[in-house]
Amino acid sequence: MATTSYPLLQTINDPADVRKLSRADLKVLATELRGFVLESVSQTGGHLSSNLGTVELTVALHHVFNTPEDRLVWDVGHQTYPHKILTGRRDRMHTLRQLGGISGFPQRAESPYDTFGTAHSSTSISAALGMAMAAKRKGEDRYAVAIIGDGAMTAGMAFEALNNGGVTDANLLVILNDNDMSISPPVGALNRYLAQLMSGQFYAAAKNVGKTVLRPVPPLLELAKRFEQQAKGMVVPATLFEKFGFNYIGPIDGHDLDSLIPTLENIKGLKGPQFLHVVTKKGQGYKLAEADPVAYHGPGKFDPAVGLVKSTAAPKQTFTQVFGQWLCDMAAQDGRLVGITPAMREGSGMVEFEKRFPDRYYDVGIAEQHAVTFAAGMACEGVKPVVAIYSTFLQRAYDQLIHDVALQNLPVVFALDRAGLVGADGATHAGAYDIPFVRCIPNMSMACPADERECRQLLSTAFEQDHPVAVRYPRGSGAGVAPLASLEGLPFGKGEIRRERLATDDLAAPRVAILAFGTLLYPALQAAESLNATVVNMRWAKPLDVDLLLQVASQHDALVTVEEGAIMGGAGSAVTEALNVAGITLPVLQLGLPDVFIEHGDPAKLLALQGLDADGIQQAITRRFFTTAEG
Amino acid sequence: MATTSYPLLQTINDPADVRKLSRADLKVLATELRGFVLESVSQTGGHLSSNLGTVELTVALHHVFNTPEDRLVWDVGHQTYPHKILTGRRDRMHTLRQLGGISGFPQRAESPYDTFGTAHSSTSISAALGMAMAAKRKGEDRYAVAIIGDGAMTAGMAFEALNNGGVTDANLLVILNDNDMSISPPVGALNRYLAQLMSGQFYAAAKNVGKTVLRPVPPLLELAKRFEQQAKGMVVPATLFEKFGFNYIGPIDGHDLDSLIPTLENIKGLKGPQFLHVVTKKGQGYKLAEADPVAYHGPGKFDPAVGLVKSTAAPKQTFTQVFGQWLCDMAAQDGRLVGITPAMREGSGMVEFEKRFPDRYYDVGIAEQHAVTFAAGMACEGVKPVVAIYSTFLQRAYDQLIHDVALQNLPVVFALDRAGLVGADGATHAGAYDIPFVRCIPNMSMACPADERECRQLLSTAFEQDHPVAVRYPRGSGAGVAPLASLEGLPFGKGEIRRERLATDDLAAPRVAILAFGTLLYPALQAAESLNATVVNMRWAKPLDVDLLLQVASQHDALVTVEEGAIMGGAGSAVTEALNVAGITLPVLQLGLPDVFIEHGDPAKLLALQGLDADGIQQAITRRFFTTAEG
Repeated sequence: MATTSYPLLQTINDPADVRKLSRADLKVLATELRGFVLESVSQTGGHLSSNLGTVELTVALHHVFNTPEDRLVWDVGHQTYPHKILTGRRDRMHTLRQLGGISGFPQRAESPYDTFGTAHSSTSISAALGMAMAAKRKGEDRYAVAIIGDGAMTAGMAFEALNNGGVTDANLLVILNDNDMSISPPVGALNRYLAQLMSGQFYAAAKNVGKTVLRPVPPLLELAKRFEQQAKGMVVPATLFEKFGFNYIGPIDGHDLDSLIPTLENIKGLKGPQFLHVVTKKGQGYKLAEADPVAYHGPGKFDPAVGLVKSTAAPKQTFTQVFGQWLCDMAAQDGRLVGITPAMREGSGMVEFEKRFPDRYYDVGIAEQHAVTFAAGMACEGVKPVVAIYSTFLQRAYDQLIHDVALQNLPVVFALDRAGLVGADGATHAGAYDIPFVRCIPNMSMACPADERECRQLLSTAFEQDHPVAVRYPRGSGAGVAPLASLEGLPFGKGEIRRERLATDDLAAPRVAILAFGTLLYPALQAAESLNATVVNMRWAKPLDVDLLLQVASQHDALVTVEEGAIMGGAGSAVTEALNVAGITLPVLQLGLPDVFIEHGDPAKLLALQGLDADGIQQAITRRFFTTAEG
Repeated sequence: MATTSYPLLQTINDPADVRKLSRADLKVLATELRGFVLESVSQTGGHLSSNLGTVELTVALHHVFNTPEDRLVWDVGHQTYPHKILTGRRDRMHTLRQLGGISGFPQRAESPYDTFGTAHSSTSISAALGMAMAAKRKGEDRYAVAIIGDGAMTAGMAFEALNNGGVTDANLLVILNDNDMSISPPVGALNRYLAQLMSGQFYAAAKNVGKTVLRPVPPLLELAKRFEQQAKGMVVPATLFEKFGFNYIGPIDGHDLDSLIPTLENIKGLKGPQFLHVVTKKGQGYKLAEADPVAYHGPGKFDPAVGLVKSTAAPKQTFTQVFGQWLCDMAAQDGRLVGITPAMREGSGMVEFEKRFPDRYYDVGIAEQHAVTFAAGMACEGVKPVVAIYSTFLQRAYDQLIHDVALQNLPVVFALDRAGLVGADGATHAGAYDIPFVRCIPNMSMACPADERECRQLLSTAFEQDHPVAVRYPRGSGAGVAPLASLEGLPFGKGEIRRERLATDDLAAPRVAILAFGTLLYPALQAAESLNATVVNMRWAKPLDVDLLLQVASQHDALVTVEEGAIMGGAGSAVTEALNVAGITLPVLQLGLPDVFIEHGDPAKLLALQGLDADGIQQAITRRFFTTAEG
C-alpha cells in the first residue's frame, strides 16, 4: 500500500499522536484514514460500510479520551478498522481476517486498546458498565465508553444494561451510532422512535441541545442546571434514554469533527451515565457504499474505482441458498409455513422469501430470544414457523429453545446456518457447540445433512415432524450435489451406508467403519478408500440411528466418528452412549473440533489444521488402528 | 376443604360461569377466591403473595375476555392459582406441585386455558405476540393477552417483544401487573420510572385517563380521537410504552373490579397493540403477606390464622446457605471479590452478603445476559466476580458465557444453584443440562461437589483460578457433612477414591468401579456395599481427572458413572470420551437423568423414580453386570 498517499496517517503510531493534532489536522487525518480503510478493505475483503461510517467518531474518541486508560468498547466490533489503524495496527491491516493475521473484531489479546472482545451484538453496554463499576470500586477515575449501533440497541441485552446502568453513578458513556442500518435494514419500534428523534420538533429541540453543548459549559453552571431540575421534584424525562436514567445528548452529526470533539469534551466533564446520540452514514465518503450499504457490508476484494462486480462464473450454490430456495418452495406448497429471522435476512438467504411471501416473513430485529419464543407462540396456533438462525446466534436463545419450544414439544424448525467453522469471522462466530447443546434437550431432534441435496431433503423431513427439529449446515458450499426439485424428505432418524468395506485376504487389517455426521462425509469417503473402511452417513445426531449403528458395530472391529463440531458431548459421544447402552465395547476414535477456540482463517485450511480433511482423517485412523496392527 | 365456605365459587366450573355474573356477584366471587387461595396454599405450600395479588385481575379477565378463545399468557405463571381455580381445577388444588398433581405453573397439557407454559420470566409478550400474529394470518378475530409483572419487564426479552410488537397491527394486550416486587425487591431504571408514573403529575394525569376510560367510549369517537392525534403529524409519545408503539392506558387499581372491568371492556374494542398498567399489591387481602411479601412469596404449609412460624428444630444447612457463608467469608478475606445476582438475592443465599458488603453486591435485575457480560467487564479490570445463578437460568446467558467469558478466558466464578432436579417447580426449573452445555465450551471448568464441605472447598478452588469455573450444587441439603471454617480449596481437577473394592475369592464377580459426579456419591457409596464396588468421587466434570480414571479403569472390569444431570453429553460421556482417547474398551454404564422432561414432585421420590437412589443404582448395576455373570 502506497503510504505516500497517507502522509499524516503514517506518522500516527498510537492514539497519543492523535491527541496532539490540531482540529485542522484531525480533519486531514480523517480523510486519509477513510482512504486507507477503503484501499485496505478492497485488497483484503472485510467489513466496509460500517468502518467508513465510524472514521470521524474514532478519530474524535481517541483525540478526546485518554485511551487505553479510558476504555472503548465497540459493539459488534466490525466497525473497528479505523480504531485498529490508529492503535498501532496500520501495518497489519493487510493480514486482516487471514490465518495468523489480525482479527476482524476487537480482541483483548491483540492490543491493550481492544478492551473487550466483541462480535455478537449488544454486549458493549454491559461490558463497559462492568468496567466503569470496577473503576469505581478501585477508586480509578476513568471513563468507559460503549459505542453501539441502532440495530444492536434492539437486542434485549442492551436494554438490560441500560436498565441497570441508569441507576448507577458509573462514569459510563453510551454512544448510539445511529446509521439506520444493521446488516439488514432496521425494523421495530425503537428504530421508528429514533427516526422521530431525528425529525420534527424533537429534532429541532435536540439540535439546540447540540449547539448548547458545543459551547464550553462551565461545570458549575452545569451542576446548577442539574440541581435546578432535580429541585423541581418530579423530573419528567423526555427521551426514552432519559427515562432509563441517562443524560441524553444529541442527535449530533457523527461525521462532523467540529460537533463531535467539543461534545465529547463536554461529556468528559460530566459524572454519571451519559448517552450521546450520533448520526452517521454507513459507507460515508464512498458513494457506491453509501448507495448500497448492504452490498458493501462485507465485500470480498474489489477495485475501489469500479466497485463490486458480479462474478461471471456461476458460483457454487451455498447451503444458505439451498435453504432459501427450499423455504420458498415449501411456503408455496404449505400455507402454514412462516419464516422468522432475527435481523439476518441476507445472511440467512431469505431475500427471495420476503419478496414472494412478505406477509409470512417476520424480521423481529436483533432479538434471538424473542424470535424463538415468538415462534413458539405461533406454533401453538397451528402455524408452522421456520426459524433461520446461525448456529452461534442460537446460543442467544438457548433457554427459549429449552423452556418454550422443547418442553412444550412445539413443531418449530430451526435452520442452523454457519454450523462448524466459519472462516474469517473466527472463534466468536464458530458454530461448534450446537450438537452438544441441542442434543441434551429432550424432545429435540437434530439433522446434519451431508450435502446440498440432503440439506433440502432433511429440511423437508424436519418440517413434516410434529416436534422441534434443528437442521445444521455449514457456511458456504459443500460437495456440490445438486438438490432435487422434489420436496420429499428422507426417513426421520435414519442414516445410510455409503461405502461398504470390501472383503479382503488380509485378516490382520482391522475392519473399520467411519460414521460421518454432516458434510465431513465427503473427506471421510476419500479417506476410506486407502483404508478399505466402511463409511456410514449418519445424517441425524439425534435421534441416532441405533439400529444401523448396532448393525455396523457388529460387523467391524473399530468405529470412527467424524463431525464438524465439538468432540465434547458431540455426535461421537452420542455414538459411544448408544454403545454403552447396548453393552458393546468397541474401540471408538472421535474426530471433530478440539476443546479450544479456533481463530479466523480460510475454512478449508482451518479444517485441515484440525485434521478434518481427507488426509487428516486417513492419518488419524491409520495412527490409531493400523500402525499397531501392522507394526 | 370446606366448600361450604365458598358458596359462589363452588358453582364456577369454568369461565363461562364467570362471564354470567353481575358486578356485585363478581365481587363476592373475588372475596371467596382469595379465601380459597389462602386456605389452599396454606395446606399445600406454594406461591402465595403473587396469587393474592392477581385475584381481581383474574376474575376480570375471564369475565371480559372469551377465554380460551382469547388467549391469556401469564408471565412466570406462579400467579395463576386463581386462574386454575376458575378454569376447572378447583378440586385439584390440593395436589398442587405434588407428584402426579397439577403444576404450580400453567401447562398446555393440563388445560386448554393454559395457552402457554411459563415459569422462567419474561416470555409472555413474545408468546402472546406470536399467537396474535398467527390469529391475524388465519383470519381469526381474537385477543392475545400477556400479563407480566414489573420485575419480569426488566428482562431484555420483554423489550425485544415490545420492540417487535409495537410496529405490528396485532390484537395484543400487554398488562403490566405492577406490584413493585419480583421475588427480591425491584432494582433498576425501569422500576424507578414506573414509580414516577404512579406519582407526581404523571400519576394525576394518568388517573384522569383512567377515569376517562371508565366511561364507555363509543368506538367512533375513539377512532376520531386517534385520527386527530395522527393528523397532528408528529405524535410525541409520553410514556416509555407509547414510544414503543403501544397505546398506554393506566395506571389503574388492579384490585378494583369497577376499574378493571370497564377498562378491559373498552380495550377489547380497540385494535392494535395495547398496554394496560395495573397496580396491585402482592399478598393483597392477607395482612401478614402484605407486610412481608418476600417471606410469603413461596411458603410451605402454615396456619393462616397464625402465619409462618420459625421452625424450632435446627434445619439442615442447605447448599445455598453454604454458598452464602462462603461468599461472605471469601469477601472478607479477598477485597477483589464482588457478588452478582440477576434478581435472586434470597434464592441464591446473598441476603447476608448484601448486608455486610453492600457496595460489593450487584443485583442487576432479571437480566441474566447482562449479569454475565457485566461480570466479564468487571473481570477485565482485575475485580473477581462471583455470579450466583440457578443452573436453569444460566441457560438465559449461554451465549454470554461462551462469547464474553470463556472465549476471553476471564476469571468469573459461576455458582450454579438448583443443579439437577428441583422438586416442586418441575421441568421448567430443572438444572439438568448444565454439564453438557458447559463442558463443551473451551476454557470452562466445572466442579460437582459431593457434599456441603466440598461445596465450600470447591468454591474456594474455583475462586483461586485464573479462568472461568462453574460450581454446580443441588437445591436443598445434602449428606450433611459440615463445611470447615477454612477457605482452603481442593486440588483443581482432581478426584479421589472413596471406597476401595475388597479383594475376594469370587473370581467370577466383576470388578466394578462407580464414578460419582456430585451429591449422588452418597447413594453410590451405599449401593457399593452389597456390590463390593470401588467408588470414586470424581468432583470435576471438567477437567476430568484422567489420571485417576485410567488408574481405576486398569483395575476394574466395568465402570459406572453417576450424575444428577442429563446422560446425553453429560459427565458419563466425558468419561467415555477419555476412555476412547486412551484406547481403552471397558463396559460403561451411564446413570443419570434420562432424555425426557421430568415433572414436579418431591425430589427424593423423583430421584428414586429415575433409579438414582441407592437401591436404584445398586439394581441397575446388578442388572447390567452381575446377573449375566451369575446366571
